[in-house]
Amino acid sequence: MACYVGVDIGGTITKVGVLNDRFQSVSFATPRSKNELCDGIIGAIRSLGGNEVDGIGVGCPGAVDSSGIVKFMPNLGITDFDVAALLNERMKTKVAVTNDANAAALGECIGKFDDAVMLTLGTGVGSGIVLGGKIFDGHMGKAAELGHMIICADGRECGCGMCGCLEAYVSATALIKRTKQVMLAHSDSLMWQIGDIDEVDGKTAFDAEKAGDPFAAAIVNEYIRFLSIGIINICNIFRPQAVIIGGGVSNQGENLLRRVRANCEALDYGYKFAPKPQILKARLPNAALYGAIAMIKYKVEENLL
Amino acid sequence: MACYVGVDIGGTITKVGVLNDRFQSVSFATPRSKNELCDGIIGAIRSLGGNEVDGIGVGCPGAVDSSGIVKFMPNLGITDFDVAALLNERMKTKVAVTNDANAAALGECIGKFDDAVMLTLGTGVGSGIVLGGKIFDGHMGKAAELGHMIICADGRECGCGMCGCLEAYVSATALIKRTKQVMLAHSDSLMWQIGDIDEVDGKTAFDAEKAGDPFAAAIVNEYIRFLSIGIINICNIFRPQAVIIGGGVSNQGENLLRRVRANCEALDYGYKFAPKPQILKARLPNAALYGAIAMIKYKVEENLL
Repeated sequence: MACYVGVDIGGTITKVGVLNDRFQSVSFATPRSKNELCDGIIGAIRSLGGNEVDGIGVGCPGAVDSSGIVKFMPNLGITDFDVAALLNERMKTKVAVTNDANAAALGECIGKFDDAVMLTLGTGVGSGIVLGGKIFDGHMGKAAELGHMIICADGRECGCGMCGCLEAYVSATALIKRTKQVMLAHSDSLMWQIGDIDEVDGKTAFDAEKAGDPFAAAIVNEYIRFLSIGIINICNIFRPQAVIIGGGVSNQGENLLRRVRANCEALDYGYKFAPKPQILKARLPNAALYGAIAMIKYKVEENLL
Repeated sequence: MACYVGVDIGGTITKVGVLNDRFQSVSFATPRSKNELCDGIIGAIRSLGGNEVDGIGVGCPGAVDSSGIVKFMPNLGITDFDVAALLNERMKTKVAVTNDANAAALGECIGKFDDAVMLTLGTGVGSGIVLGGKIFDGHMGKAAELGHMIICADGRECGCGMCGCLEAYVSATALIKRTKQVMLAHSDSLMWQIGDIDEVDGKTAFDAEKAGDPFAAAIVNEYIRFLSIGIINICNIFRPQAVIIGGGVSNQGENLLRRVRANCEALDYGYKFAPKPQILKARLPNAALYGAIAMIKYKVEENLL
């Protein structure tokens, strides 16, 4: 019985899962140093009975290069983390590392899609691409930053230094910023009744729209229109089977997705002739863990490491 | 000695190449009917000594589905052209069909790049993507319409019915349209000395810029800025080894490419940490023919047909 390990390093929590005759997982608060993080991962693997391990797949927030070095994990302040070499040395097994958004995309696809793109609408806009059942991460593992696809030349400033990036329109951060702007411009908006301006979150505009506030409806419609443009671009570029939406904003569910689908049907170039990608909500809280395991299993079985 | 055939069906000229112990090619005016086109292709193969053929690769303008049916070749008025079945029946060999932009991209990559994107700046904006040394054409062969990537929400109208597509800014057609607009607004532009407004082509603004016309310089700078945005998006999405620029406008050569590279270096998200894609001019007049042969050779050798 083969034994594969998945690791999902998060800004707050790290999850470790072991798949052998069954699947078990544990989680722990992510330490702020490389060695403690490795100790935590290895301790977790051992606690789940993973002694003879055939491979470890790791999903990390931040930029990962193709040699398995995590260049930078912004939320943890860790740089040049050679997690593959460290785990390999201590566990004597093969290790593969990818961005956590890639791992989550693969996890969401297992058993359902060979070709799909996942967008995570959170603090930023994360993206993961699965092509032919495998993570696509471009030449030397640096793709794909779909959040920094420019959808509006000379548009809103993005944290990356460019203007008009998808992230500057459809991250939860962008939605909150826009909500506050509109509230400040309209003291009669119902949004003021939901909470103080300092309490605005990604739900505020959606909630006020439901309560009949026209200012909130304008924010939500604008948000959905920009998200639809991003998804139309993804469809025209990858023509995937599915576009999967995750992150906090995706909790709006069908109220969001139904309207995005309508926009895509109305606008998508070649939609009539091309296969129609499904637009779905992400479903699995442990998607990145499952994806990390699927990635290492594939790489070990195909002898790619 | 294996024998592979490549076919590049063009709006005006069709080229056929046969690769066995050497490479030979012929071309003929593209007939306007399916049967005559097949007759022409088969006649050309026979004239080049291709009797026992191991496979035929075909590049077609227009939309091709994964079963090898050309849904629509706009410039030829041919629809639902089952070229794979027709050639297979008459030549008793395997046939694979792809979009001509995909074939050209693969042809330009042979021996040089495993991961590259080609943009063709002509009447429209064609695109071909090579990933891992193979044509990427998405789920069911419908990718990738990079020309219809929206780079400017609510921007210029595109022939596809959407607004703000890359094609609406960087096709030769878009450049000509913009040149005429600027000429009409500025009767003192040097562009009027280059030729009448009916004679404007994709070179007019570039030529007048060289002659010192500030109005032409503004057109060219704007054009290059939008092209750079498209290329930055491609880099952030695919992180390829190279972006290859073809089509009429690419004949501006280094005057165009040097300025595009400077923009990309200044703007590209993550450029500092990511591998720097080369930005190059397409080189091979027979790229689509070579690419069609490379595609069929790969598919036959890997037993994919």
